[in-house]
Amino acid sequence: MLRFAERTKGAKRSAIRELLKYTEQPEVISFAGGLPDPAAFPLDFLANVAQEEILHNAVKSLQYTTTEGKRPLRQSLAQWLLEEGIKTTMDQIVITAGSQQGLDLLGRVFLNEGDAVFVSLPTYLGALQAFRAYQPTLVGIPLEEDGMDLDFLRRAIREARRAGHDPKLIYVVPDFQNPTGITWSREKREELLEIAEEEDLLVVEDIPYRWLRYEGEHLPTIASLDRYGRVIVLLTFSKILAPGLRIGALVGPEEVVNMVVTLKQGADLCGPSLTQRLAVRFLTDYNLKEHFARLCQHYRGKLAAMLDALARHMPEEATWTKPEGGLFVWVKLPDGVDTTKMLERALAHKVAYVPGQPFFADGSGQNTMRLSFALATLEQIEEGIRRLGAVVKEEIAALSLAKQG
Amino acid sequence: MLRFAERTKGAKRSAIRELLKYTEQPEVISFAGGLPDPAAFPLDFLANVAQEEILHNAVKSLQYTTTEGKRPLRQSLAQWLLEEGIKTTMDQIVITAGSQQGLDLLGRVFLNEGDAVFVSLPTYLGALQAFRAYQPTLVGIPLEEDGMDLDFLRRAIREARRAGHDPKLIYVVPDFQNPTGITWSREKREELLEIAEEEDLLVVEDIPYRWLRYEGEHLPTIASLDRYGRVIVLLTFSKILAPGLRIGALVGPEEVVNMVVTLKQGADLCGPSLTQRLAVRFLTDYNLKEHFARLCQHYRGKLAAMLDALARHMPEEATWTKPEGGLFVWVKLPDGVDTTKMLERALAHKVAYVPGQPFFADGSGQNTMRLSFALATLEQIEEGIRRLGAVVKEEIAALSLAKQG
Repeated sequence: MLRFAERTKGAKRSAIRELLKYTEQPEVISFAGGLPDPAAFPLDFLANVAQEEILHNAVKSLQYTTTEGKRPLRQSLAQWLLEEGIKTTMDQIVITAGSQQGLDLLGRVFLNEGDAVFVSLPTYLGALQAFRAYQPTLVGIPLEEDGMDLDFLRRAIREARRAGHDPKLIYVVPDFQNPTGITWSREKREELLEIAEEEDLLVVEDIPYRWLRYEGEHLPTIASLDRYGRVIVLLTFSKILAPGLRIGALVGPEEVVNMVVTLKQGADLCGPSLTQRLAVRFLTDYNLKEHFARLCQHYRGKLAAMLDALARHMPEEATWTKPEGGLFVWVKLPDGVDTTKMLERALAHKVAYVPGQPFFADGSGQNTMRLSFALATLEQIEEGIRRLGAVVKEEIAALSLAKQG
Repeated sequence: MLRFAERTKGAKRSAIRELLKYTEQPEVISFAGGLPDPAAFPLDFLANVAQEEILHNAVKSLQYTTTEGKRPLRQSLAQWLLEEGIKTTMDQIVITAGSQQGLDLLGRVFLNEGDAVFVSLPTYLGALQAFRAYQPTLVGIPLEEDGMDLDFLRRAIREARRAGHDPKLIYVVPDFQNPTGITWSREKREELLEIAEEEDLLVVEDIPYRWLRYEGEHLPTIASLDRYGRVIVLLTFSKILAPGLRIGALVGPEEVVNMVVTLKQGADLCGPSLTQRLAVRFLTDYNLKEHFARLCQHYRGKLAAMLDALARHMPEEATWTKPEGGLFVWVKLPDGVDTTKMLERALAHKVAYVPGQPFFADGSGQNTMRLSFALATLEQIEEGIRRLGAVVKEEIAALSLAKQG
């Protein structure tokens, strides 16, 4: 009786979101979620502002608003992005439900069935999900320590075109990527723009973690280096204010933004006025510099604790990234280890992580896993990584036994 | 350089939303918007609850939540819908961004290009926009005083099937429809279910105005009459609480809801936690009966004033609906009058309305217009309809002059 659309065929729920259900037992130390720490939310500020906006600004905070988002929010965002070297105006900004809705709307605006989208191996899972609804050809590009393998990318673009797949978008998370924590070098940022120009593609630069740098040099956004008008920026307040507000933004060429707004009308009419007002007040009335400094201080110690614990508890066969910011560390285990299967052993040891495979557009990455240090205490990080080290050692031993047997 | 997807070709912005920009001059009396009256928002309650939730329930109100929506919200909604005779469980409910996102997600889940969707002539414009993104065949069915012309619908379903368009959905707003204010009779509600069962379609029952009945008998929802599991209900808190919260819900068979949730992950990950918590508190801590009674009292007088003014100021060639609830009155002018063109004359007379044509899937309805009485005061209603009557008389006179000339 139910005849679903063709596009539902490949649809599957995020393995991670489903997994989270099993990792929520109180005794389990979980490095699984991608959630920011609520201890870093500015509660007093938000509570006061919410009360004020509802009582004294009801039409602006509770009535419908425009599809593109509230004018003062787009204005103050444009101002703020200037500090990132991104010259933009409020007409080049549309407010979205987190950056996830931005990804969905880009798929909607650009992707015909079969069009090629280039993503790193691994990449943000939510981007894969958003794009897949439009049935594109997702092409995985190896991710190196300083960004995508750009020679591989060039070849892949040409191959896709030869195979009849119109190359439309390159999706990147250049700062402290989810899931690996890897940051692109300045050189690769510049070269990516040249490739986009030469090969006539758009770059989607997703920067959710950009303001969470705990050490090292702040690198320019790809958008700030762009002389061609080929970059669309996605940002979100989820990691720097609070995810439950669902405020993000898509920033790009006006022609793109206009089409995004046109299709967004059918998708949701407009975003929530109340949480947009909270975001405006956060940008205009709150001390952002101090806030970001506090956030970075909050997470810096956790990242250091995790890297330190990994060095002490992991077997030498394991390798991992050393991010300078963000919320994630990425661990690679020897070939043959399947982290999805290993999760059962981990849960028996009361520790949880996210298996890496779902982050790979090509289904590889079975021997990888993502660890988030954001929600755990320093003590939990030490104890959890100790448990995880034991799990990995057991798993490797069991594998080598099985091979001998 | 920009290569948009095929689906953008037919995309156009809502004529209404664009028009609203020109009707916002302070001297214009506007019957154009579809907005509820902020004077009816429970500000003190919302302000207190927002403050409380942020300060004392931060993880629940500011962290990410589940894609399907907060459990207590789905639970209290299921409870509340029981009072409407709709037997459901929280597993059959997904929280959406107003009912608009529900429409979009239904398109995403069900519609292949060319599939047939049946809508009344006229119908809610947002539904047309949402469905059009999935490139269906939209089939317009004449709307009579007691609901769709169901004989026409039966024939249209069979014709669509013969022409190779899989008939998937029938979209209806059975209570005080936007834009006409028309309410379906009980007989047509029952017959629609038989047609859905016989012809193997689903009914999408959108009930945004259901709780705004100012007189007459409360009729059963189509869902409450459904023995076949063929109805998907869309509801929203926009007209009964506040639209700026963007809280709605899709209620339907579990298999449908599961697929909707799967595709919703890619669309927005989850809805806003904060405004979902406000909706929970509204359902559980606020006196809904009294609130709805106040709302109805608030709008009842405005509707009466508009109907009374229309009777006194409109020329006899004009006809209009006499709704028992909702926010709209629908006016039909003689053939030959083009209300889109007439709007210029109306704005010169400092009065605004929405031309009816965009509400017609087949592009007809040039001589119709929608009037909302929600935002105007009683004095503005009297004065605005007086002006509009003069506009209509002038337009008819000009037309008849042009014919003679």
